[in-house]
Amino acid sequence: MEAGESFADALPWLKKYSGAVIVVKVGGHAMVDPEARSGIIKDIVTLKFLGLKPVIVHGGGPEIDAMMKRMGKTPQFVSGLRVTDDETLEIVRMVLVGNVNTDIVSLIARHGGKGVGIIGNDGNFIVARKKAPEKVVMNGKEVDIDYGWVGETESINPGILSLLLENGYIPAIAPIGYDAAGNCFNLNADTAAGDIAVAIGATSLVSLTDVDGVMMDPKKKETLIPQLSVAQCYELINKGVVSRGMIPKILSSISVIKGGIKSVHIINGNLPHALLQELFTDKGVGTCITLD
Amino acid sequence: MEAGESFADALPWLKKYSGAVIVVKVGGHAMVDPEARSGIIKDIVTLKFLGLKPVIVHGGGPEIDAMMKRMGKTPQFVSGLRVTDDETLEIVRMVLVGNVNTDIVSLIARHGGKGVGIIGNDGNFIVARKKAPEKVVMNGKEVDIDYGWVGETESINPGILSLLLENGYIPAIAPIGYDAAGNCFNLNADTAAGDIAVAIGATSLVSLTDVDGVMMDPKKKETLIPQLSVAQCYELINKGVVSRGMIPKILSSISVIKGGIKSVHIINGNLPHALLQELFTDKGVGTCITLD
Amino acid sequence: MEAGESFADALPWLKKYSGAVIVVKVGGHAMVDPEARSGIIKDIVTLKFLGLKPVIVHGGGPEIDAMMKRMGKTPQFVSGLRVTDDETLEIVRMVLVGNVNTDIVSLIARHGGKGVGIIGNDGNFIVARKKAPEKVVMNGKEVDIDYGWVGETESINPGILSLLLENGYIPAIAPIGYDAAGNCFNLNADTAAGDIAVAIGATSLVSLTDVDGVMMDPKKKETLIPQLSVAQCYELINKGVVSRGMIPKILSSISVIKGGIKSVHIINGNLPHALLQELFTDKGVGTCITLD
Amino acid sequence: MEAGESFADALPWLKKYSGAVIVVKVGGHAMVDPEARSGIIKDIVTLKFLGLKPVIVHGGGPEIDAMMKRMGKTPQFVSGLRVTDDETLEIVRMVLVGNVNTDIVSLIARHGGKGVGIIGNDGNFIVARKKAPEKVVMNGKEVDIDYGWVGETESINPGILSLLLENGYIPAIAPIGYDAAGNCFNLNADTAAGDIAVAIGATSLVSLTDVDGVMMDPKKKETLIPQLSVAQCYELINKGVVSRGMIPKILSSISVIKGGIKSVHIINGNLPHALLQELFTDKGVGTCITLD
Amino acid sequence: MEAGESFADALPWLKKYSGAVIVVKVGGHAMVDPEARSGIIKDIVTLKFLGLKPVIVHGGGPEIDAMMKRMGKTPQFVSGLRVTDDETLEIVRMVLVGNVNTDIVSLIARHGGKGVGIIGNDGNFIVARKKAPEKVVMNGKEVDIDYGWVGETESINPGILSLLLENGYIPAIAPIGYDAAGNCFNLNADTAAGDIAVAIGATSLVSLTDVDGVMMDPKKKETLIPQLSVAQCYELINKGVVSRGMIPKILSSISVIKGGIKSVHIINGNLPHALLQELFTDKGVGTCITLD
Amino acid sequence: MEAGESFADALPWLKKYSGAVIVVKVGGHAMVDPEARSGIIKDIVTLKFLGLKPVIVHGGGPEIDAMMKRMGKTPQFVSGLRVTDDETLEIVRMVLVGNVNTDIVSLIARHGGKGVGIIGNDGNFIVARKKAPEKVVMNGKEVDIDYGWVGETESINPGILSLLLENGYIPAIAPIGYDAAGNCFNLNADTAAGDIAVAIGATSLVSLTDVDGVMMDPKKKETLIPQLSVAQCYELINKGVVSRGMIPKILSSISVIKGGIKSVHIINGNLPHALLQELFTDKGVGTCITLD
Repeated sequence: MEAGESFADALPWLKKYSGAVIVVKVGGHAMVDPEARSGIIKDIVTLKFLGLKPVIVHGGGPEIDAMMKRMGKTPQFVSGLRVTDDETLEIVRMVLVGNVNTDIVSLIARHGGKGVGIIGNDGNFIVARKKAPEKVVMNGKEVDIDYGWVGETESINPGILSLLLENGYIPAIAPIGYDAAGNCFNLNADTAAGDIAVAIGATSLVSLTDVDGVMMDPKKKETLIPQLSVAQCYELINKGVVSRGMIPKILSSISVIKGGIKSVHIINGNLPHALLQELFTDKGVGTCITLD
Repeated sequence: MEAGESFADALPWLKKYSGAVIVVKVGGHAMVDPEARSGIIKDIVTLKFLGLKPVIVHGGGPEIDAMMKRMGKTPQFVSGLRVTDDETLEIVRMVLVGNVNTDIVSLIARHGGKGVGIIGNDGNFIVARKKAPEKVVMNGKEVDIDYGWVGETESINPGILSLLLENGYIPAIAPIGYDAAGNCFNLNADTAAGDIAVAIGATSLVSLTDVDGVMMDPKKKETLIPQLSVAQCYELINKGVVSRGMIPKILSSISVIKGGIKSVHIINGNLPHALLQELFTDKGVGTCITLD
Repeated sequence: MEAGESFADALPWLKKYSGAVIVVKVGGHAMVDPEARSGIIKDIVTLKFLGLKPVIVHGGGPEIDAMMKRMGKTPQFVSGLRVTDDETLEIVRMVLVGNVNTDIVSLIARHGGKGVGIIGNDGNFIVARKKAPEKVVMNGKEVDIDYGWVGETESINPGILSLLLENGYIPAIAPIGYDAAGNCFNLNADTAAGDIAVAIGATSLVSLTDVDGVMMDPKKKETLIPQLSVAQCYELINKGVVSRGMIPKILSSISVIKGGIKSVHIINGNLPHALLQELFTDKGVGTCITLD
Repeated sequence: MEAGESFADALPWLKKYSGAVIVVKVGGHAMVDPEARSGIIKDIVTLKFLGLKPVIVHGGGPEIDAMMKRMGKTPQFVSGLRVTDDETLEIVRMVLVGNVNTDIVSLIARHGGKGVGIIGNDGNFIVARKKAPEKVVMNGKEVDIDYGWVGETESINPGILSLLLENGYIPAIAPIGYDAAGNCFNLNADTAAGDIAVAIGATSLVSLTDVDGVMMDPKKKETLIPQLSVAQCYELINKGVVSRGMIPKILSSISVIKGGIKSVHIINGNLPHALLQELFTDKGVGTCITLD
Repeated sequence: MEAGESFADALPWLKKYSGAVIVVKVGGHAMVDPEARSGIIKDIVTLKFLGLKPVIVHGGGPEIDAMMKRMGKTPQFVSGLRVTDDETLEIVRMVLVGNVNTDIVSLIARHGGKGVGIIGNDGNFIVARKKAPEKVVMNGKEVDIDYGWVGETESINPGILSLLLENGYIPAIAPIGYDAAGNCFNLNADTAAGDIAVAIGATSLVSLTDVDGVMMDPKKKETLIPQLSVAQCYELINKGVVSRGMIPKILSSISVIKGGIKSVHIINGNLPHALLQELFTDKGVGTCITLD
Repeated sequence: MEAGESFADALPWLKKYSGAVIVVKVGGHAMVDPEARSGIIKDIVTLKFLGLKPVIVHGGGPEIDAMMKRMGKTPQFVSGLRVTDDETLEIVRMVLVGNVNTDIVSLIARHGGKGVGIIGNDGNFIVARKKAPEKVVMNGKEVDIDYGWVGETESINPGILSLLLENGYIPAIAPIGYDAAGNCFNLNADTAAGDIAVAIGATSLVSLTDVDGVMMDPKKKETLIPQLSVAQCYELINKGVVSRGMIPKILSSISVIKGGIKSVHIINGNLPHALLQELFTDKGVGTCITLD
């Protein structure tokens, strides 16, 4: 297909997203590979020049693990959360803020955008609190788990974000929150992305993952479901059709949609230009979840 | 090529044209065919949603000829200009303003844009004066020709245009000018498009024609010259390579560029999405003339 | 009376109308006579420089009839509405937009104002729909009448009008509406003027007619009623005092006032400076209808 | 003449003065008579609602003399200036600010305007300095005269005035200035009016006096000169045609015009609506002095 | 204590009062002594440069008494109010506006601020009405007292005040009000200050008096109560602990607080820098009354 | 001294710095001690609420050294610059951005301000280039030294800084720059602070150090020079009076002043509230260098 045709065909989508705030949660294998990462950031800068207002939220699990090893520490996870002691928190913050975030901001610049790195204490953006200790079954025994400096969003002050977006900047956010006493918390990037999207009244949240979307059978590409309503999501879960790993992603998407976001997109970040393909073509590439 | 790739590849062009005013002179066969005309206007609305500020300038020769016939008048042309007596002027104005212009504004609306029809007395936009009578050789004899109500641009007050562009409207301009006494003049659409582009400080002027661009041999598509500097234009003319009909178009493009416009594009309006293809791909479809 | 005294006496009215939007429906004999027409437009430009925001709505019945005759068509009216087939619609549009409207805009310029001609598809200003066919009694028989392309206002998007008024332009509106599919409709100018006045929240609607106002006896000037409340209007109609032709004008004035307009004025456009006399003197020249 | 005609005839003047700042120096017999004073202030409020930005500058000689008498002091004048000792200064300030100025502001309110009383230390508006002592010939002898607290304008900070004018207020200014040390000075109202007009870039200065304007013979009304250029003024003075009392007024008008004011008007404040008559009719009532 | 420490310690108060409108009622002995008065105005200018928006309200009892004596009149008071006949009103206005107010504005300038003197008819700021005659017991007999031109606030139009405050001016207000008919009234300065504070939504009202604040025993400094809630105020009054003279001040403070003001401060204007000390130190110098 | 007096005495300084941008280079022992660091940041937040616009620039030498040791690397310095290989650069960035900068932003929040952490690629703020290798004499031998990723400021885009300052944020800047290719550079904090101050047109640059200022004899407090002109600086250096360590500081101050900064202050960050004491008292605490 000729480029001109692609643009003309995209007209309904260009209209829909004209001036819209889009939160993009970047992650997965693609963000570890320098070239793929650069491609993703280029797509996000392209969103900016197509008239949208993209916001990046990133994690950095692999980079944190690597740095912990270099410093002689062993990462410890319970229920998918990184148990975060004082030293781990310092490493998390140094790696997320000093390495991953600064790298993303540099890539934005390289592709012609104006990025600004943001964490939870910039403009008191993310107010967080400690995640309460939980009882967890490990090796058949119920254990009390204190996750340390793992936090949850308490509230979001979108002022700094709005200011940057209105002035043409692309904010890149590391999921680190602070409480009023100045304590620093390690937040889950997916959850933070959803919280931020709701707080700033984003139109859409796009999650770049390593899977193609919601599938009837994760091994068969052709079972990808391109479009789901919230009701259909519940039905799928109740029928036990979707895979275990996908259930929390769907539930969190539903909660974000109930917060007022028009659409949540789960797409495969490893496909070239998946982001643009999903937002600006009728077919898309992954799964788009909407209210109705 | 996938749509996503087209968008990403277009990033340098999206940046270049971000917020730019682009004057599009529509014309040729395509504007007479309803479907092709709708396609061209759709492309222009797409420009708007890609972040540009398009301005349409149109003529309407075939429609005027048809109406004159219906009213029992025979069109008369000298040196390519329509000799315009009182009755012809009235027909020109009624057809251009009442039919062609209103139709374009309707098509803009149908494709989701907000059009506004404009002629020379709206906000005193185009101040014109009568074209002076000339001596012309006809049938071997020199004759004095008074073109009647054919006019030339004297000055342009871009206020109304700027106001509309800043507020998201797509102006569609019929080439009719007025003098201070209220006399109405029939202007050449190509010349008016150039004058307007210069007066509002447009970035580019795109001319939709029935030819592919400047060609070494008009019959061989492969001789199309995609890119020309002003110096190269003069060289081509001096060498006598370009066709007679193309010379005035090239000269007028040069004059527009000297007026401060960054690029003039001569493209074939009959090619689908020629406008988008020309502006947002590296290769383009026609001839782009720039200063250097 | 000296001019200075006139100005000082007008102080209460200048205050009342300071910054007010006034819709002036121009029409009647005066608009056909070039000199009288120029005088009316001059008065409207004067309104602008007295600090008001005038909006012009015009018809063009006589001009349309004349052009139809020139093109060999016979105008056909039922219940005061022009039955409008395809060809008639084209003539209506060409004459109203290309001749009458452009002439008014030129007169505004000649008297030092900045006019802009507007029809229903400019900025999707007037969304219209086809007037439903009706049963009408003709020559004693009930006949089904399809008025063709005669339309009714469905909704008004006042954006373009507000933009022009805030920036010092005088909009001149031809009563032509469009539906979403791009179909064009011939609207009644009086009704359109009322609809527009309500939609933009005008302070007053002034209707220039060929009568002096509401009169107890249309043949006796001294029976003119300068001031009427809505209640008094109903009383007059119920008592059968006012003439048949005046009843629809009064009913439509009432409906406009119920839409929020402070006053509707029915005045004689043939009296010199009737518009200024009506708005800026205690006595006025015609009939002013208000809520109470 | 009908009011409507007056308004339409005034169109060129309404255009000329649209948004213009007009400094009106009020004074003379009319300002002492309550009814005439009210009429003058009404005319000034009318200017406001005709779209101009009037500024009032007033004196208060008769009121000061009366108060001095009540307090047992004898006014003393040399070369037309009030010799101002400490006690006189206090009376001048109390009468001008506390009586005359507050009365004018009240009259503005009564006629529907929003007045604000201003003196030289409001927003550091008028910075003044002491008028240097002079040698004056009195009773045939040269005497050294120290005028006490009589001052001259050193500089004007138009900030407070611009703020008030942009927000629709009518400033009423008492001619009292201050130096940096806080000393208070009694200024000549005519001179202050000219200085203020120049400093704020007024379009015109109108001076309400007890004479009809510049006259060839002050006793014959028909010798009034309605229009004078600066060159003609010099010629009149050189020829010795104008009266002694008029010369300083003409010279000060010339100096104001050289400061950039377009026109200075000397009119008779005792004629009803002289201000409106002068500004909005072709004939005017007094003498208008312009550069050419 | 070092200055730097004072500033750092004041941080909570600087935050609290950042951008806040503070009405300062100046009065008492300090305002009669030139040096003390200058010191008070300097403190108010300092408030401005600390980021607050101070508004001054002043009386002028001693100055009015002195002028009345000079003019041979004897001041007459009933129930603490000055009985105001025509001549007294003129003196009140001349002294308050022409002397006291202009002096305060000059002092603001001397300390580097931009003052503007304001009375009730500037921008129709204070609309007042005549205080109704009352029965008063004098010398054991009930007498009908007509206070003459003593007035009460009917309404306040804060427009002019807001405009001045937003543009960096310090308004100095003389308590003189006007009714719609232009009648002038002598207002009580304390009451006017409270009315103004409520009308403009001030954060605090500070009253400079000759006492240290609310005291258990007016003769013992150590019985000063630094902080009072409205409930505690009522308790004190009910218990009969506070002095008679203090009761109206407390009641009027309560009424102001019920009008939405956050805090009312009664302080001793004779203490150097009492105003700054009260607003910017934890201890303060007088009594601060708040809702809870 | 009472706080109120301190505030009143500071009036000239409050005026001078009203709205002024002040760059504060924090550093020295005080920034390593948590309590002293908190005090310094509190003073800076106090500046904000006194109406100034503070900008923080920080280094982090001790923190970087500590982290290098933890990761088994030995810091290497030549001519006072940290030789920066790839691994060192990563540590520098992680520590400066992830630890020191985030800690400062948290302290701003704790004291009630709104901080935002900024580095060179945020909004392409600091464009840097590699410092050219130099010949350096080490142990008596001239050696070629390549400083690795040590950089110099090439240009500064103050856009993001201006945006934050205009909207009430306190920017905290880590001295890390980027070139167009995305390479990251370690900048000297003192130099960066000066470059930034010049680029944003700051009024003053305050440098918090471990010395009291410029002294005739660094061991005798009483030889501190509170005020120096540029000419006096040169004289001191030429006379060889100032210590070796102070010379580069003085030279860099001069260069900053030549860039348009009104004053550079060298003060001892270990003195409590040195910053406030220096800016808001007549005496100050350190050395203030100005043009004349």
